[in-house]
Amino acid sequence: MPDDAAKREMKSIPPKGADLSDWYTQVCLRAQLVDYAPVRGCIVLRPYGFAIWDLIREEFDRRFKATGHQNAYFPLFIPESLLAREAEHVEGFAPEVAWVTEGGGEKLTERLAIRPTSEVIVGMMYARWIQSHRDLPVLINQWANVVRWEKATRPFLRTLEFLWQEGHTAHATQAEASEEVQQMLEIYRSVAEDILCLPVITGRKSEHEKFAGAAATFAIEALMPDGKALQAGTSHELGQHFAKAYDIKFTDTDEQIKHVWTTSWGVSWRILGGVIMVHGDDRGLVLPPAIAPHQVVVVPIPKKGDDTVAVAAREIAALLQGVARTHVDDRPEQTAPWKFNEWEMRGVPLRAEIGPRDIAAGQVTLARRDTLEKVAVPREQLAARVSEILADIQRSLYARALAERERRTVVAHDRKSFVDGLVAQTGFVESLWCARTECELDIKAETSAVSRVIAGAAEPGSVCAYCGCPAPVRAFFARSY
Amino acid sequence: MPDDAAKREMKSIPPKGADLSDWYTQVCLRAQLVDYAPVRGCIVLRPYGFAIWDLIREEFDRRFKATGHQNAYFPLFIPESLLAREAEHVEGFAPEVAWVTEGGGEKLTERLAIRPTSEVIVGMMYARWIQSHRDLPVLINQWANVVRWEKATRPFLRTLEFLWQEGHTAHATQAEASEEVQQMLEIYRSVAEDILCLPVITGRKSEHEKFAGAAATFAIEALMPDGKALQAGTSHELGQHFAKAYDIKFTDTDEQIKHVWTTSWGVSWRILGGVIMVHGDDRGLVLPPAIAPHQVVVVPIPKKGDDTVAVAAREIAALLQGVARTHVDDRPEQTAPWKFNEWEMRGVPLRAEIGPRDIAAGQVTLARRDTLEKVAVPREQLAARVSEILADIQRSLYARALAERERRTVVAHDRKSFVDGLVAQTGFVESLWCARTECELDIKAETSAVSRVIAGAAEPGSVCAYCGCPAPVRAFFARSY
Repeated sequence: MPDDAAKREMKSIPPKGADLSDWYTQVCLRAQLVDYAPVRGCIVLRPYGFAIWDLIREEFDRRFKATGHQNAYFPLFIPESLLAREAEHVEGFAPEVAWVTEGGGEKLTERLAIRPTSEVIVGMMYARWIQSHRDLPVLINQWANVVRWEKATRPFLRTLEFLWQEGHTAHATQAEASEEVQQMLEIYRSVAEDILCLPVITGRKSEHEKFAGAAATFAIEALMPDGKALQAGTSHELGQHFAKAYDIKFTDTDEQIKHVWTTSWGVSWRILGGVIMVHGDDRGLVLPPAIAPHQVVVVPIPKKGDDTVAVAAREIAALLQGVARTHVDDRPEQTAPWKFNEWEMRGVPLRAEIGPRDIAAGQVTLARRDTLEKVAVPREQLAARVSEILADIQRSLYARALAERERRTVVAHDRKSFVDGLVAQTGFVESLWCARTECELDIKAETSAVSRVIAGAAEPGSVCAYCGCPAPVRAFFARSY
Repeated sequence: MPDDAAKREMKSIPPKGADLSDWYTQVCLRAQLVDYAPVRGCIVLRPYGFAIWDLIREEFDRRFKATGHQNAYFPLFIPESLLAREAEHVEGFAPEVAWVTEGGGEKLTERLAIRPTSEVIVGMMYARWIQSHRDLPVLINQWANVVRWEKATRPFLRTLEFLWQEGHTAHATQAEASEEVQQMLEIYRSVAEDILCLPVITGRKSEHEKFAGAAATFAIEALMPDGKALQAGTSHELGQHFAKAYDIKFTDTDEQIKHVWTTSWGVSWRILGGVIMVHGDDRGLVLPPAIAPHQVVVVPIPKKGDDTVAVAAREIAALLQGVARTHVDDRPEQTAPWKFNEWEMRGVPLRAEIGPRDIAAGQVTLARRDTLEKVAVPREQLAARVSEILADIQRSLYARALAERERRTVVAHDRKSFVDGLVAQTGFVESLWCARTECELDIKAETSAVSRVIAGAAEPGSVCAYCGCPAPVRAFFARSY
């Protein structure tokens, strides 16, 4: 019986350009990021995928803590009667909820929702914890699993259960809440661009696209190779909606009792789906060095009966200690070319090859995953060069993705170029917009696209490219995941 | 309206000796570790409780990784038909399962169990991932939430949903699996004793007490102040039970197709319940330094109109950087004595007081949480002394708990001393035992206690203290949480 690894070698993945969706699924599976679970709609995050997600998580977590947030954990279940208190919120989420109706061998008197998000349960607790202005702000984040019932399954992008973080904060004033929302949006932008090499557009969501229960939603949106947008993180001003629904009040410095202003903000493992889609190529995954579990894989090219190569591989790993996360692939049962393919599929940024010729020349051969270029580096320069090249990969993945997004963004000045741009589905269509829900619904009906973010104010006297009404804003449109 | 903090000050907790259960709940709430959620049986892990749990988690996780384990994430849901395949396992867990029966607005055709533990879903995946001896061993851990329907609620000890880790491994041979189980048991013992200062007895569970579906279960058990035992971690040899139920097979080096041998092992936040109960006192929580989010709290004792104290407090924190996790409590709205109480309640191991007299004398006053002793330390010796004292607290918490357990452990030589010991509920009763389920059920009926672990073999010719049958083993008995 052939083993798993041998089977993987036998067939290659489809080219990325031919069928993005099939390519994507194959890469997720073959890079051993995930596997489908024997439960419809669910995936297993395998150790390699988990290690990547963990690195992403650490980057966010460090920034959350640096801005004064603390982690906590709230329950998985929300009683139906509580969920129902914020009308827009329940209306938005009810169709996606999974319900527990039996427990401990008995039918429950009240259904329990499995959290699709935790504003409700957090709001209930904040009502208990907050009494005085001295208790504010409350700045809490949780890393958790949530469930939203989905018909289709795509690893990371669309799963019934997913992992995410959700921040929930309460403030004395609207201004502070608003500042918090922008601060978290900026953290999302910075992790997306600086760490994940994903250029994103940021801005406010339209009325039609905002979070159920929010006063205003802000988002980061990345462009995928098929011209669709991926919403990769959202930050919500919840106004006093939840404070009023869940009775979160405090005595202010002026002795008046007031409702707090709350925010929430979330990023899920879906952002990893964006990384895979944007950077990957026909050979598989391409990981930004910042989130690669192995930044360098050392592959010995052994000569029979000569163990100097194995020794040299370990020496190279030692030289890179503290410089890069390095893995030596010394499996005896696989050939070097097989290992090259495997680690290219799994997206390792840099491969260090070491064979008898390299040893004789006192060098190491480095192969970049992003450009597939090879370069021989003298051993004494190895650490410095690896550092430089990893930094260069990090920079150039971002630059390449940004150039691609810019190439694929069309500025529409009239209805025809607006509609043509969206129907061609090349990428973002940027235009002046009236920001009316009616107009957005018409656009959606005609093109299947919606606004992704409102990026800023328009010059006075501007008109909407689609409907001709006065246009107060500039917005980006696209179909979306 | 009085704020939360002021309310806390108003009433003190009951003495630990008077009503352990009430004391325990009050400490959990008042130290702000947890709060009750508006869902029956569930708790919220508040930021301070989460920070402690996170430190415990890091200690375990580091040791899991050092022994070659990787983290992954498996789905929350298990279809009913899959759960049913391992007969003993489903029989053991079915009464405690929460069932999802509706999702996405529709009634499901098959109920989904919320994982009470993940052997089933992991087994299904291992069957897919393992084909060759080269794929073995598989060493995976997950940190996750699980749900077991409970009637009563006690923070950490008994909750409907809880956080834990569950390791799942697959091996080519029984010997390797058995070695893994002992290795993980030893890691559990070492974290419990060295990090949490909880002395534990270790050993094998009786047939009656073992995990549903296991061939053998090993556990660590700690003694609580009310004489009850707390099972704080378990490590299971699953034999080939799950491999056969879920068809996990591999081609061995001899080309034969064989079933793998699996293990699982878990520790939950319940171990934190043990820490609270064993070390706490009438003033509240007492944390071992190794898991204290703040190891030292600096409390300035200000003199009106003199800000040298505030400056000195920050200098002290600077002196302790890299030495201890230090927090400066410079809240202007609370008095120093109020802060002393608050941080004693929250278990901070060491308090550093700094007032005008300390400044004048070039010293800092240190107060140990465990002994409540105070000592004045010259500033230039501060870092060294803090290090020493924290290490001493870590040691003495363990020593004190160990002495207490030994004092409360009775060796029973006959039926009367055996039964009297258990009925008195002083602590563990150690005795020679026949290890028969029938005998265990009789003991349980008479004393409400069961065997906690089988600690070793008995001398040939030994007889059971309870029933007089031949006794192959030495065991520990107690009532339990």
